[in-house]
Amino acid sequence: MATSTSPVVDIHTHMYPPSYLSMLEKRTTIPLVRSFPGANEPRLILLEAEIENLEKAGKDAAVGLPGRPLTSHYASLEQKLHFMNTHKIDISVISLANPWCDFLEPENAAPQTRATNVEFSQMCAAHPGRLYFFATLPLTAPIDQLLEAITELKTLDYCRGVILGTSGLGSGLDDPKILPIFSQLAQNKLPVFLHPHYGLPNEMWGPRASAEYGHVLPLAMGFPMETTIAVTRMFLAGVFDAVPDLQMILAHSGGTLPFLAGRIESCIMHDGHLAATNKTGPGRRSLWTVLREQIYLDAVVYSPVGLKAAVDASGPGRVMFGTDHPFFPPLKTDPQGEWESVSLNAEAIALAASPGAQSAIMGDTAARVLNLTGK
Amino acid sequence: MATSTSPVVDIHTHMYPPSYLSMLEKRTTIPLVRSFPGANEPRLILLEAEIENLEKAGKDAAVGLPGRPLTSHYASLEQKLHFMNTHKIDISVISLANPWCDFLEPENAAPQTRATNVEFSQMCAAHPGRLYFFATLPLTAPIDQLLEAITELKTLDYCRGVILGTSGLGSGLDDPKILPIFSQLAQNKLPVFLHPHYGLPNEMWGPRASAEYGHVLPLAMGFPMETTIAVTRMFLAGVFDAVPDLQMILAHSGGTLPFLAGRIESCIMHDGHLAATNKTGPGRRSLWTVLREQIYLDAVVYSPVGLKAAVDASGPGRVMFGTDHPFFPPLKTDPQGEWESVSLNAEAIALAASPGAQSAIMGDTAARVLNLTGK
Repeated sequence: MATSTSPVVDIHTHMYPPSYLSMLEKRTTIPLVRSFPGANEPRLILLEAEIENLEKAGKDAAVGLPGRPLTSHYASLEQKLHFMNTHKIDISVISLANPWCDFLEPENAAPQTRATNVEFSQMCAAHPGRLYFFATLPLTAPIDQLLEAITELKTLDYCRGVILGTSGLGSGLDDPKILPIFSQLAQNKLPVFLHPHYGLPNEMWGPRASAEYGHVLPLAMGFPMETTIAVTRMFLAGVFDAVPDLQMILAHSGGTLPFLAGRIESCIMHDGHLAATNKTGPGRRSLWTVLREQIYLDAVVYSPVGLKAAVDASGPGRVMFGTDHPFFPPLKTDPQGEWESVSLNAEAIALAASPGAQSAIMGDTAARVLNLTGK
Repeated sequence: MATSTSPVVDIHTHMYPPSYLSMLEKRTTIPLVRSFPGANEPRLILLEAEIENLEKAGKDAAVGLPGRPLTSHYASLEQKLHFMNTHKIDISVISLANPWCDFLEPENAAPQTRATNVEFSQMCAAHPGRLYFFATLPLTAPIDQLLEAITELKTLDYCRGVILGTSGLGSGLDDPKILPIFSQLAQNKLPVFLHPHYGLPNEMWGPRASAEYGHVLPLAMGFPMETTIAVTRMFLAGVFDAVPDLQMILAHSGGTLPFLAGRIESCIMHDGHLAATNKTGPGRRSLWTVLREQIYLDAVVYSPVGLKAAVDASGPGRVMFGTDHPFFPPLKTDPQGEWESVSLNAEAIALAASPGAQSAIMGDTAARVLNLTGK
């Protein structure tokens, strides 16, 4: 995919470094890693929707085990490089995968995220110029430790932003208490890569979901809907106005934000309560403006229809290629070869973006915005 | 908007006929109609998210009252015609608004829906050629009464399909027990206009939502997400294959389906459980195929970005103009004049659809597909 002048950059690519996985192995509640008799690999269990069959599982070898097999793709740096080479990806901006350190006891949060971030920085240093990373924040730590952790990130080579879930300090990203965090990040020019994890309550998938539909519903819909709701709550709370230098990169092309932005704006314009409390007066920045000034979207949307909407919403200079590796490996071909989950997104860009926009989306924008040169 | 040859057709436009409203006035749980001292009009309260402040309300006149004012726009046929004339709408396909008769005691369901459907048919007869309607089904009635009610619809003039919520017989539209209903509808060539009502659980909106964000979150996101989930559950359950003649019209341009279809397809292709249970083998019809063969989308999406995605997903011949009247009245201009919630959608079509597609979307397709001539 690369040309001589334009790098291919993957901004959505995860790892669980070894120290993080050993922590998960000791846990008895999600997230956790567990081995099952007869299964070749331990299973990585992350989602509420996956633990329903945790107690039932273990008798069948392959079918019905919860979560996903913990292959070398999750933790091995060599595997990441092999994946990059196979798909002609020049640079990857790696990040810890969900649920990051959202669940840690307050006293463990800062040391654990520090260790993880240092580990990421060292992995990048082992392959200079090919790897950068988004750091993890100790969100459950006391606020002074959390603010200090952000400052510390500037001392870590190859750190280019932070990855963040939607829970914030526990009650969402529209919590006024999280504003100092966003300000501190903006001040340090660290963009936020916003990524879902919590999805929607299981009741939304109905009584037949877990037995009949695999992981499709929570992954295909819970994740993007969670992201959309989180950003809209931030927008309604005025976070983007309060922290005008905050830059966000939204996973999965913003969830569903490009498609729903029109409806969200219309609902705001037609809301009696917002009008009565003077929240829709002149000077209000619309969601469309915020999309074009403070939001980047990854291109992980798996269709030309979605990719075009993402580009139309944020502009061709604000959409960035990603793979979501190591999730969505091929099931019917060799996982050491090409991944269809990658080619679907690359093809969508080739089909739906203008020739001029394609190199921007495939890597030029990420290289420029995230300053992907040097340490 | 009309040209001499092409009618403008509104396929998404609601009414609460007088008999339905008097039923709501007698209720003490949602949906209900209630008067508050100092308020000019009674309030129509439909959503779980709106009853949080039901008990607190009533002291302030305008601010903080739950639900929305029950203006003449909800029940008056003259008002509907005035609205149509103001917006140059030639034909409206009216439907009962949510939550329809989903909540009725089984013994009341068939008589109440019959009365409502007859009332709609009479309203259409009073303005021949300008009004048609989607009927309501007695979903809580015993199955034989429900099937009989569908057969009865063929005797009602001006009936052109049914409006349906997402709860089905109580556990969703992927319930195998609802298949005979879909078959009976398909056999009678009655398309289903699928419309949301139940949204997402309030917890998704966070602790600040009801006080600070008005109705924005449940309306702007709960509704379209509900529709997307319902259709995807139907798709995964194989309903579209089991009833290949079933035709659905999805409210709000399919919720978020055009944007998420790529991700849904990818999640299906990469799901280990579906692969192990042979649900992803050759011959499987993709969601894209179903979108182009069994699904129509309304054009109620309030942006060129969304409209383009809807057209790209289903094809320009499967998208139909709608207004969502009487919801989203203008707050700052005279509601007897033009509504911005209408012009936003008309402008999106003018901006984002090809000239050839515009008359199709504005009315030609609806007139042909729903056979909007004669009784």
